Amino acid sequence: MLPHLVSEHRGSSVEYACRPEAVVVIGASATESKWGHLVLKGIIQGGYRGKIYPVNPKATEILGLRAYANVLDIEEPIDLAVIGIKATLVPQAIEDCKNKGVKVAIIISGGFAEVGEEGRKLQEEVIKMAGDVRIIGPNTLGIVNLSHNFNASFLRPLRGSFALLCQGGNVIAEVEYIARRKGLGFTQIIDPGNQADVGICDFLEYINDDPETKAILMYIEGFGKNEGRRFLRIAKEITKTKPIIAIKVGVTEAGAKAIRSHTGSLAGDDAIYDAAFRQAGIIRVRNSYELVDTADALLRLPVMKSNKFGILVDGGSHSTMACDAASKYGLELSDLSDKTQRMLRKILLPHSPVSNPVDFAGAMDADVRVLTKASDLILQDENVDGLLLAGINFGGYSQWWGAMEKEIAYGLTEVQGRYTKPMILHNSVLSQETPALQIINDGGIPVYSDVERAARCMAALADYGMYIESVKKGVELPVPVSEKLTANNVAQIIRRARAGRRHNLLETEARQILKEYGLPVPEFRVATTKEDAGRVAEKIGYPVAAKVLSAKIIHKTEAGGVKLNLKDKDEVEKAFDEIIENARRYSRDTQVEGVIISPMERVGTEVIIGMIRDAQFGPVIMFGLGGIFVEVLKDVSFRVVPLEEHDAWEMVREIQGYPVLKGVRGKAKDINAIVNIILKISKLSMENEKITELDLNPVVVFEEGASVVDTRMIIGNQ
Amino acid sequence: MLPHLVSEHRGSSVEYACRPEAVVVIGASATESKWGHLVLKGIIQGGYRGKIYPVNPKATEILGLRAYANVLDIEEPIDLAVIGIKATLVPQAIEDCKNKGVKVAIIISGGFAEVGEEGRKLQEEVIKMAGDVRIIGPNTLGIVNLSHNFNASFLRPLRGSFALLCQGGNVIAEVEYIARRKGLGFTQIIDPGNQADVGICDFLEYINDDPETKAILMYIEGFGKNEGRRFLRIAKEITKTKPIIAIKVGVTEAGAKAIRSHTGSLAGDDAIYDAAFRQAGIIRVRNSYELVDTADALLRLPVMKSNKFGILVDGGSHSTMACDAASKYGLELSDLSDKTQRMLRKILLPHSPVSNPVDFAGAMDADVRVLTKASDLILQDENVDGLLLAGINFGGYSQWWGAMEKEIAYGLTEVQGRYTKPMILHNSVLSQETPALQIINDGGIPVYSDVERAARCMAALADYGMYIESVKKGVELPVPVSEKLTANNVAQIIRRARAGRRHNLLETEARQILKEYGLPVPEFRVATTKEDAGRVAEKIGYPVAAKVLSAKIIHKTEAGGVKLNLKDKDEVEKAFDEIIENARRYSRDTQVEGVIISPMERVGTEVIIGMIRDAQFGPVIMFGLGGIFVEVLKDVSFRVVPLEEHDAWEMVREIQGYPVLKGVRGKAKDINAIVNIILKISKLSMENEKITELDLNPVVVFEEGASVVDTRMIIGNQ
Repeated sequence: MLPHLVSEHRGSSVEYACRPEAVVVIGASATESKWGHLVLKGIIQGGYRGKIYPVNPKATEILGLRAYANVLDIEEPIDLAVIGIKATLVPQAIEDCKNKGVKVAIIISGGFAEVGEEGRKLQEEVIKMAGDVRIIGPNTLGIVNLSHNFNASFLRPLRGSFALLCQGGNVIAEVEYIARRKGLGFTQIIDPGNQADVGICDFLEYINDDPETKAILMYIEGFGKNEGRRFLRIAKEITKTKPIIAIKVGVTEAGAKAIRSHTGSLAGDDAIYDAAFRQAGIIRVRNSYELVDTADALLRLPVMKSNKFGILVDGGSHSTMACDAASKYGLELSDLSDKTQRMLRKILLPHSPVSNPVDFAGAMDADVRVLTKASDLILQDENVDGLLLAGINFGGYSQWWGAMEKEIAYGLTEVQGRYTKPMILHNSVLSQETPALQIINDGGIPVYSDVERAARCMAALADYGMYIESVKKGVELPVPVSEKLTANNVAQIIRRARAGRRHNLLETEARQILKEYGLPVPEFRVATTKEDAGRVAEKIGYPVAAKVLSAKIIHKTEAGGVKLNLKDKDEVEKAFDEIIENARRYSRDTQVEGVIISPMERVGTEVIIGMIRDAQFGPVIMFGLGGIFVEVLKDVSFRVVPLEEHDAWEMVREIQGYPVLKGVRGKAKDINAIVNIILKISKLSMENEKITELDLNPVVVFEEGASVVDTRMIIGNQ
Repeated sequence: MLPHLVSEHRGSSVEYACRPEAVVVIGASATESKWGHLVLKGIIQGGYRGKIYPVNPKATEILGLRAYANVLDIEEPIDLAVIGIKATLVPQAIEDCKNKGVKVAIIISGGFAEVGEEGRKLQEEVIKMAGDVRIIGPNTLGIVNLSHNFNASFLRPLRGSFALLCQGGNVIAEVEYIARRKGLGFTQIIDPGNQADVGICDFLEYINDDPETKAILMYIEGFGKNEGRRFLRIAKEITKTKPIIAIKVGVTEAGAKAIRSHTGSLAGDDAIYDAAFRQAGIIRVRNSYELVDTADALLRLPVMKSNKFGILVDGGSHSTMACDAASKYGLELSDLSDKTQRMLRKILLPHSPVSNPVDFAGAMDADVRVLTKASDLILQDENVDGLLLAGINFGGYSQWWGAMEKEIAYGLTEVQGRYTKPMILHNSVLSQETPALQIINDGGIPVYSDVERAARCMAALADYGMYIESVKKGVELPVPVSEKLTANNVAQIIRRARAGRRHNLLETEARQILKEYGLPVPEFRVATTKEDAGRVAEKIGYPVAAKVLSAKIIHKTEAGGVKLNLKDKDEVEKAFDEIIENARRYSRDTQVEGVIISPMERVGTEVIIGMIRDAQFGPVIMFGLGGIFVEVLKDVSFRVVPLEEHDAWEMVREIQGYPVLKGVRGKAKDINAIVNIILKISKLSMENEKITELDLNPVVVFEEGASVVDTRMIIGNQ
């Protein structure tokens, strides 16, 4: 065994792929433009210390190594096979690997599930054939593990501290290229390809255990069934010590899903990812440039305790641009203390603004050393958690700085060294050749030519810092003990419905389940005759509401199945008859179980709380205001179960219509009551996996308390 | 007179500044780092053919030219003085210029209005002193007019086709730098500085008349009083033939304004600029990079007839990213014709998607020539107005393209040449040294390394193209003949209110004015006694609404001044008494003019239409849905008066809540009726400049027609 093989992953499939003792390249080639050549060359030139066996039936020697006709011809044991041959030949190669006892095969070849039905079948055949051989890919760019000098790919990245886990070959090439141009490198670059066997989460765990990896960069197109949930769990652990920065593409509509609830129709992929990323402290970025910039900033700079920061700028135009960018990314300008402002006034010009944003307004033209002094003063202020220097142009047109440039550059890095607060420089006329900028960048102050990019990075430092802080303070996550812990009464209701092949629970059944979980459901009785209805109403007390009870009628109001504000026995009895009559007219074979009689609810603000099961993330909770807010504006928020209390609070505060709850004209509504319902629905959905969707719509919220007025609950087949 | 002075601007202040026959540099210096040196050198080296006189009391010769102690010592006539001396010395220099008969002075010196009160006074002094001397600046970076080889600044830009008109010196330096790195240059670069005398609009007119200027780039912080309006008028003319691309910074709140109406409180600067830019066909961008990119694209590429375009991509990840970016900027994917798809299928792989986005999915690996063939096929499709090639990486890792790169590059430019549709290339691993990319770029296909930037440019081509199209089709703008054309009746009402020192018109007065303009105001009578109220209601017919009439009560409902749905004489009389009683309780000295009785309005959708006068743009119209939509969500749209019909339509369609009007559950509301009201309010506000704010809130819109139910109208002091 090689001495470097000591990780606890030894023996895991990813470990064999990332640190093999012996590797075979099936499809190795002497033709320079071929994958089989580039990959073999990558392994050799990468400084790999294990054994390498090229396999190619038409060659006897490739790149100075003895070539074999078949993997079975090799006598020594093999950990890893890297396969780059025609798709149709892959099943045979895999069978050979199985017979040889190869532990893991990376199938670089394309032509599988990604190309449609035929390829999908071929991929299934490969997996069936594989037996104990674990499969990475197919359709992957390969694996690079510079932490252990193993590079089975055509890439030639620099060595550094990023791990890149990425589902798209083109994006890998792009990110690697951008990083290289900034002098940044990698520990691992891993493309899981089609994930026919080994998946993203397996790699993520391995990467996280590499002490050389300081930040994880991801590009995510989507997860397999339930993998989102696993990903979230792992990511939550990782982000406690290492930042994860991720691009998520495909801002798609939920069109493809079979939709049976409001919540379902609103739960677009993108909204759920946004919620999940926020819960796990993952920094979401837009593109490859932001990915590298942000990762670099998170890796090199101290994080911020808050989103409050200072701007020090030369000139009004960049001052305004910096403020715009800051507000775009959710940063806030610190209030500088009187002391700071007094001291700034002493060193700046009489007309220079000394409140945040602090503007030299020409003060540097007189003496550029004021830059370091002012930076120091602002960072000293305890209201300030970071400093953006905007529109400070080293190089370019600042020829009158003359020989001072380098001195000032060193001065800035010294200031930076005195604080655990980040400093970022926006230098719009950016020239890589300017030595001063090199000094600044190397000294721990990243330099950007675009003030938005600078603000984006500052915001990432604030977001991640505040997340870490909240995790430290926060309660431990509720452990999702088991998702099959259905209470007895609830189980019985669900069993009965399933026996009757009903997917929509009756409202009475749904209400019963909500009651079991302590949700505020108003009193109700079911009347089966006109007289019964009158009697029940007398007991409840007027006014009452009457609502049809039938598993077949989903839109009760449209079906004429709802009568409100009934004031006496006569009205109730008349309503009963009308409801039954309307139900019959609605559809001849509608089975009506009766009419629900309940007290009229007081007036309050209507909200909707819902749950769906996402294929990737499992149960997801939705919250929004009722009516037009949901139907037209789609003004809703999401969180992935299990929710912590602060998640529920955030959900409520996050919607645009939040001021309605805080009270636009009247008093504030009982947001605590909403949070309670959300947390109970989180528990309910975790413990009852047969409930696949539910809408509490509306929940009426009062100044004190709330009431679940109408409920839909759907159970699945599984 | 020099032969090149033939423009119709000859004799205008800007003309003298941009094409002087003789120029004096006051503060010319032999010290290399000084402005007075750099500017003088700029003029000399720029190839200026007129006469140059350095003025410096301490020198006899500067840069080979005879120096004068004072401008008055020069015998020949002087068109232009460029002044770069201490602020406090400027008034004397200006007096000298006046006495010398100098036509225009560019004051480069800072230290005036931009530094506060003292500087403001100094600036006023300069203007007072100037007499017939027109002033540019102060606090300007200077003027560059490469079209006529005149460069009075420290800049050394390339010559090209952009004009840059920019209020911030730092941003000028930044834009010039970015352009230079792309090999792009300028005709004019003009910094109007503090605009103490000559303003942005003066320059804009001059720039527009230069035939060498093909695109105008602007950076705008704000306009002076009413200048926004003038700007809009000029810009509308310019954009018919030349694109204007503008950065507008300062996304500020309207906090500072004195707010008396809903409309006023919602009309943030930024929303009004957005509206104004859209009306004038100005392309708004975010930063200097987008400014240069977009201008370059608009200058070099054909515009698009629609926002529909094709994407041709290699690989799923960039396909998704390109789609995301397109949707972000409002582009739509064309539906490719069956023929196009059939022909693409012939040349691509069996698994390559041939509907838009078309994905090679590896087809280029087999034969890269398929790139040009597929591009050609897509551009041929008449549903396609532009083509984005995404994730096609020349250079970088595409080593297996080998020697084909250049051939393919030429092929692409040939394809481009066959169509008047734009093509843009996203090449993520961008290396400027790749000859193929140089060929492509030079051949009329711009290359971007960020797919969002590529999509941004494509969107600009669509936006500008569609704007031009709409202008061609559209009716001529209503000429704002006069803004003081107040109709007699209306004038009388306003006069009466002003005589009574009232700013809030009585609702009866406001309704009268609306009626004069043909707006749908419901019938109403004013009752002054209980009996009167009953009598009036009998005539109108029940049910009726009763509303207090008083200039002092602004929030009528809160004051108990509104009673709705009164069904008979008794109810009306009782309501009258209650309203009068409530008004008394509201405030002891409230003067009540009576009670308005009007028929109850049918149920419909409530909207708000308002108007404010913006200091920069004049009257601005607002539209939104009533209630929570305006109060909480601030979901409103703006347009600057005068509006064309399509502007009014756009205003309605633009709000998020538009589906409510189109009919979420019921039938669509009468949007034509809304458009009519908007256009009439546009006319009203143009013809009555004393009306400073108005809210029609609510206007109830029915399936046919609309009704202005409540009105507030405010008149100003001017």
